[in-house]
Amino acid sequence: MSANIETLITDIADYMSRVGLAAREASRAIGRASTAQKNQSLNAIAEQILAQAGELKRANALDLTAGREKGLAEALLDRLELTDERIASMAEGLRQIATLPDPIGVISNLAYRPSGIQVGQMRVPLGVIGIIYESRPNVTADAAGLCLKSGNAVILRGGSEAVHSNQAIAACIKHGLEVAGLPADVVQVIETTDRAAVGELLRLKDSVDVIIPRGGKSLIERITNESEVPVIKHLDGICHVYIDDEADREKALNVAFNSKTQRYGTCNTMETLLLAASAAARILPDLAKMYVEKGVELRGCENTQALLKDSNIAVLAAEEEDWSTEYLAPVLSIKIVEDIDAAISHINKYSSQHTESIVTENYTKSRQFLREVDSSSVMVNASTRFADGFEYGLGAEIGISTDKLHARGPVGLDGLTSMKYVVLGDGQVRQ
Amino acid sequence: MSANIETLITDIADYMSRVGLAAREASRAIGRASTAQKNQSLNAIAEQILAQAGELKRANALDLTAGREKGLAEALLDRLELTDERIASMAEGLRQIATLPDPIGVISNLAYRPSGIQVGQMRVPLGVIGIIYESRPNVTADAAGLCLKSGNAVILRGGSEAVHSNQAIAACIKHGLEVAGLPADVVQVIETTDRAAVGELLRLKDSVDVIIPRGGKSLIERITNESEVPVIKHLDGICHVYIDDEADREKALNVAFNSKTQRYGTCNTMETLLLAASAAARILPDLAKMYVEKGVELRGCENTQALLKDSNIAVLAAEEEDWSTEYLAPVLSIKIVEDIDAAISHINKYSSQHTESIVTENYTKSRQFLREVDSSSVMVNASTRFADGFEYGLGAEIGISTDKLHARGPVGLDGLTSMKYVVLGDGQVRQ
Repeated sequence: MSANIETLITDIADYMSRVGLAAREASRAIGRASTAQKNQSLNAIAEQILAQAGELKRANALDLTAGREKGLAEALLDRLELTDERIASMAEGLRQIATLPDPIGVISNLAYRPSGIQVGQMRVPLGVIGIIYESRPNVTADAAGLCLKSGNAVILRGGSEAVHSNQAIAACIKHGLEVAGLPADVVQVIETTDRAAVGELLRLKDSVDVIIPRGGKSLIERITNESEVPVIKHLDGICHVYIDDEADREKALNVAFNSKTQRYGTCNTMETLLLAASAAARILPDLAKMYVEKGVELRGCENTQALLKDSNIAVLAAEEEDWSTEYLAPVLSIKIVEDIDAAISHINKYSSQHTESIVTENYTKSRQFLREVDSSSVMVNASTRFADGFEYGLGAEIGISTDKLHARGPVGLDGLTSMKYVVLGDGQVRQ
Repeated sequence: MSANIETLITDIADYMSRVGLAAREASRAIGRASTAQKNQSLNAIAEQILAQAGELKRANALDLTAGREKGLAEALLDRLELTDERIASMAEGLRQIATLPDPIGVISNLAYRPSGIQVGQMRVPLGVIGIIYESRPNVTADAAGLCLKSGNAVILRGGSEAVHSNQAIAACIKHGLEVAGLPADVVQVIETTDRAAVGELLRLKDSVDVIIPRGGKSLIERITNESEVPVIKHLDGICHVYIDDEADREKALNVAFNSKTQRYGTCNTMETLLLAASAAARILPDLAKMYVEKGVELRGCENTQALLKDSNIAVLAAEEEDWSTEYLAPVLSIKIVEDIDAAISHINKYSSQHTESIVTENYTKSRQFLREVDSSSVMVNASTRFADGFEYGLGAEIGISTDKLHARGPVGLDGLTSMKYVVLGDGQVRQ
């Protein structure tokens, strides 16, 4: 399918500019669509995805074959694969989005002013969202569903290795939009694998309101530097757990162990463990043993090495760059610090401002940590692995923003919206 | 004073980079400053401004003399002048900001999740804000006050024509910060008038979190195009009033007259009047007479010209470009449209998405207008002149954003903040 399309798209700039204009036009229709209509289309897409499971797997097989020929790594091939389970989970995800409350049109804080006017804020769509992502084809359905529910038109640009899978999912989406009487251009999946299409998308500042990149750090940095459209970024997660001297021992072991080992490859996984000097002797030897038994490589500061030497636990020397490395692997750096102030300083210096957690029973220090740590999620006595749209009750997430402007932390439906002011009067004028 | 400073600042890039680093450093102190400390400094700055009124006027006189020598327009000289009244009003503005509730640290929506963790959002400062503005020196005090109260460090870059006035105000701010024990670098007023400083400021993406330009359209467009730091823009205001066929006649006359004539040079002034065909005959002749008596030049569509010809009111023919012109002057374009749908189409095509108002008694059409008009303020039966931070109850405003990301409409203290997630647990881990 794509080969055929490729030959038709010779002028990428022109093609992308038409995609942008079509999205802007479609955004008006989806922006004013009723909740029922949006939910109907989400459920229809889910149904079609299940009905077309065979077709999706056939298209996916083309991508997998091409990927193997190109020598894609096994991990990437795994992410690329559409199994029956993954197809069912895509459909289920769309149905869940249909059950979420519609954010659009919600009016808050409507209050009378001394002049007699009533002023409030109404939640509205952003307009047109561009999403650039890598190999997982399920993002095509997830992102389309979130944008659709939040009243936005979306331009999706998936990885070239998933082009057949993405086009097959796009066909299901098109069908679902049609069933609900919505324009097909509400969701456009870029049909060319030409990399120039990404560059053109980043220049469409008149027809695209925001770009959301999903993928590795280098992809996101490239997009951020190149884009003329505002970007909601999700950079790396260098997350910390700080075990305070007043930490409960059991909570410390549980939180620190879970934060590192529950999954290694996720951005909310702890990469550096900090311990108050007076807590280290009490907690670190047992905790280090748990990590080692789980197969986690430890890299520690000098005090950590000295302390664990007595317990015969091998600890490599942590280098300066360890403190700013996102391992995404069974590797953990450990530093013993003087107190909470030193811990906060270390975090605010090395953290990627994603997620940090303190383990403490002390009321004042818990408040200090919450207030002074400048990260998108700050926790007390909880695993960093909770930093997630589902766990936070957003229902779904399009990513986790490490930006401060607009959206910070897990981005759900509200993050894809804006607020306009509404004013209700009885003929009031300014004096 | 500035001449002396100029000779000291030879390497602008180095100077601005040091300003940026000092701001980042100071942002940590102001970010965790107590409400009492912030209010104390605001009141101390206000006091110092009043105590130094003589000094401010002496510095201002240097700017006025230089401005006259350079042949600045009278309107600009007027904006530049610091009178006793304006000095008192600067001080009063700062005291008002001190009385506003502190937005920082406010936690909202703290709720238990099925996992047992409690999740909420805490309001936090953005960090470092860069403000680039033109001749009015009072912006120096206003903007410093708003940034200070919202826990941000700020870099202020005023117009070169106000350099002595701005430095004199900066000295008062420095004194007030010192009185409250806050670092002087919380508010830095750029000391050089070299235009290269603006370009350098726009490149400080590691030490500045957001740029807010205040000034004419060309300044804002230049900054937006050039900036590597995110920008909160306030572009032009091409505002509309639509008089529906079910409008109350008296409300229509009042709202449409006030929206145009209460002040001509403001961004929330109406520039185009739309009337439903069936309302025009009933309302337009008298309304047009009111405008003409007030000295407003009218430019109308063909139907407007035909209708007002019978009343002997002179109406120029509106050209296509009139519909997208911000006159900022006693000029009004008028168009008779078929119905509300045509009015909304016209607005969504030509408006700058600032402020639009409908005059109607019809419930369904008021709801349609509120929902479908894509502007930062949408009103029913109220003058567009109400689109203002004070009128909306924000207490103060740093500008009116015509962007959709982050802040839309009047930007008060909340617009200078972000939200981080806070998670309170009892040792919970992810399953």
